[in-house]
Amino acid sequence: MTTQIGLFGFGVVGQGLYEILAQKNGTAPGRITRICVRDRAKPRSLPPGKFTFNPEDIFSDPDISHIVEATDRPDDAFGIVRRGLLMGKTVVSANKKMLAERLPELLHLQRASGSRLLYEASAGGSIPIFRNLEQFYRHDQVRGIRGVLNGSTNFMLSRMTDEGLAFPEVLALAQQSGFAESDPTLDVDAHDPAYKLVLLIYQAFGKILAPESVLRLGIRHISAEDVGFAAQHSRKIRLLATAEPAPEGKIRAHILPAMVPPRDPFFNLHDEYNGIQIQTFFTENQMLTGKGAGSLPTGFAVLSDLNASLRQEFAPVRLLAATAPTQNHLQHEVVIYWRCPDPGRRGLLTFQEILEETPLESGFRVVGRIGLDALAAAAGELGESRSFVATM
Amino acid sequence: MTTQIGLFGFGVVGQGLYEILAQKNGTAPGRITRICVRDRAKPRSLPPGKFTFNPEDIFSDPDISHIVEATDRPDDAFGIVRRGLLMGKTVVSANKKMLAERLPELLHLQRASGSRLLYEASAGGSIPIFRNLEQFYRHDQVRGIRGVLNGSTNFMLSRMTDEGLAFPEVLALAQQSGFAESDPTLDVDAHDPAYKLVLLIYQAFGKILAPESVLRLGIRHISAEDVGFAAQHSRKIRLLATAEPAPEGKIRAHILPAMVPPRDPFFNLHDEYNGIQIQTFFTENQMLTGKGAGSLPTGFAVLSDLNASLRQEFAPVRLLAATAPTQNHLQHEVVIYWRCPDPGRRGLLTFQEILEETPLESGFRVVGRIGLDALAAAAGELGESRSFVATM
Repeated sequence: MTTQIGLFGFGVVGQGLYEILAQKNGTAPGRITRICVRDRAKPRSLPPGKFTFNPEDIFSDPDISHIVEATDRPDDAFGIVRRGLLMGKTVVSANKKMLAERLPELLHLQRASGSRLLYEASAGGSIPIFRNLEQFYRHDQVRGIRGVLNGSTNFMLSRMTDEGLAFPEVLALAQQSGFAESDPTLDVDAHDPAYKLVLLIYQAFGKILAPESVLRLGIRHISAEDVGFAAQHSRKIRLLATAEPAPEGKIRAHILPAMVPPRDPFFNLHDEYNGIQIQTFFTENQMLTGKGAGSLPTGFAVLSDLNASLRQEFAPVRLLAATAPTQNHLQHEVVIYWRCPDPGRRGLLTFQEILEETPLESGFRVVGRIGLDALAAAAGELGESRSFVATM
Repeated sequence: MTTQIGLFGFGVVGQGLYEILAQKNGTAPGRITRICVRDRAKPRSLPPGKFTFNPEDIFSDPDISHIVEATDRPDDAFGIVRRGLLMGKTVVSANKKMLAERLPELLHLQRASGSRLLYEASAGGSIPIFRNLEQFYRHDQVRGIRGVLNGSTNFMLSRMTDEGLAFPEVLALAQQSGFAESDPTLDVDAHDPAYKLVLLIYQAFGKILAPESVLRLGIRHISAEDVGFAAQHSRKIRLLATAEPAPEGKIRAHILPAMVPPRDPFFNLHDEYNGIQIQTFFTENQMLTGKGAGSLPTGFAVLSDLNASLRQEFAPVRLLAATAPTQNHLQHEVVIYWRCPDPGRRGLLTFQEILEETPLESGFRVVGRIGLDALAAAAGELGESRSFVATM
């Protein structure tokens, strides 16, 4: 008998999954028997009988063994996942914000219910990163992760570099192309990649880190001057997520713009692509790249969770790992580029070593060595000062 | 009870696996109880009791459920794999030459015996390419594969480009670094990547292609002139394996030097790294990169086969796919660069369109559009004429 799937939400991801299952037809691992949506007035591309507005039509249907949560409101999403797990269903979700913020509760829920939650589509788009971390790298020892985890900001950064467009132009372009949300805050302020990094950290290191404790500086105030400075040094700017084990069982985790040199594997990662580099003990250095967004790529990642579930292709071990959150360890120095349009804010950052300091027509530029903790302490004010910071 | 593993051969791969299992100690999926070697006189790093010279000590031991074949002679390797499968053991092999040449027999043997043969380490070094093709991309539809599958030639090509070294120098350097065999023919004449491509083709498309039918031109006659020409066009030379489905159920497969532009993902693939790009219907374009050689990376790939076997993480489906070999479909045009030191050989290749033709101090250079079939027909003579050919 075909597996019956209940789908919540019929947006980009849900429609992608539906289309893929329809196209695969005879070889699909299951079929979507019911779709629960919120908006009764919205016109739909499928017969009305497919839809319901009552979640219980899915939760209480004993023939539905799998639930795909593809809604957009994090609170609703958590309720759906929670109820699904408690009703004994396998649940697939792509909602990185909800997953990252509720990770400890979700782990408890899985343990209590014995049901499984999968979320391959929540980070890296189409890249099978969770599956590989769970099946392949789990037997190695992961020493570090670096990644471009946000397709829309990478799209913007690569268009600024390659076509010389200004930030407002690339932002509009990303929104037109459907890569960026109408409210781009989650992307350009680096919240979105922080959620994803938290999920990768759990899978790679078995540690829980609260998303708000990830040091993050975005690209909201990037200017042509910054892109030009990177180009003068033969570099390109990428929004880079980094995580590695640190002393005392802590994790060092940050999302920072980075000026990467030509030999860096992220230098050539263009447009809406995502890339994840895994440093391990035995395999040393591997990288996976692929489309970070889009209806079919993301829908396919959801499908891969369904397939993995049906073939029992996952390890239950990690569920029993410690579920107490750990802390972000930021006692570590990096070299940064800092451009600030406000000359009065120079005192905001104290450097360990200044490599270059230059007054600009408006404001100033400093290149120097600084502690990540100092950067974290000033993160809010850096934003207010319309500064742009990037590691070098 | 721990799984007992019988190991054949104690060279680079075998020692790598042994070391990894020793380091993993309590968390290892099994232990090597017996190692069968050929040379009685060779000093060994382990107690003599670990070794045997009689293969039957392993084959007939009912407690040994898994055999790792890591010998260097293809004929011996086939005998070991054959006997292992018939004795009901799960067999892991890294011998790409043997696997590619004997693929139809090996598929029959698996079907007849019901035993499973795994070979993650045979292509892509440490990259989990077979596992991903089998578990993730299998549910998609693979439309094409491009890869740098030979670490030693990539090492040579990237040193020629980056350090301006000549071919004999980089060859010696690769041999010193342990990347190239003392007889480098398999690498520089592109036999080695052809074996690997044949195995990837089977996994991705379910088709069998004889390795000798893969069109292959190597890098034996590359000169500073070729590297310079590529650099003038902002390109780098890579030895690129390509495979895609073709009409009439055939496959188009070739290993050719390629002058890749800066935005090509292989442009930035340096040193002994391998990279494999998978084009699919749903995920569109993904790439995996990692170390293509080395004791621990390759040993870890063998370990991943053992883990997959113990956790039943593979699909038995493909074993039942058609096992009749298909043909290489070369009715397809490409643009090539051809440099030949012998002016008398100009008639060797007939182009559909000539884009540039230049006499050189010794010989000549042509850039033009040509059929892959014409290239295949002249492959032997191109070698004799000391020509270098690369796609553009």
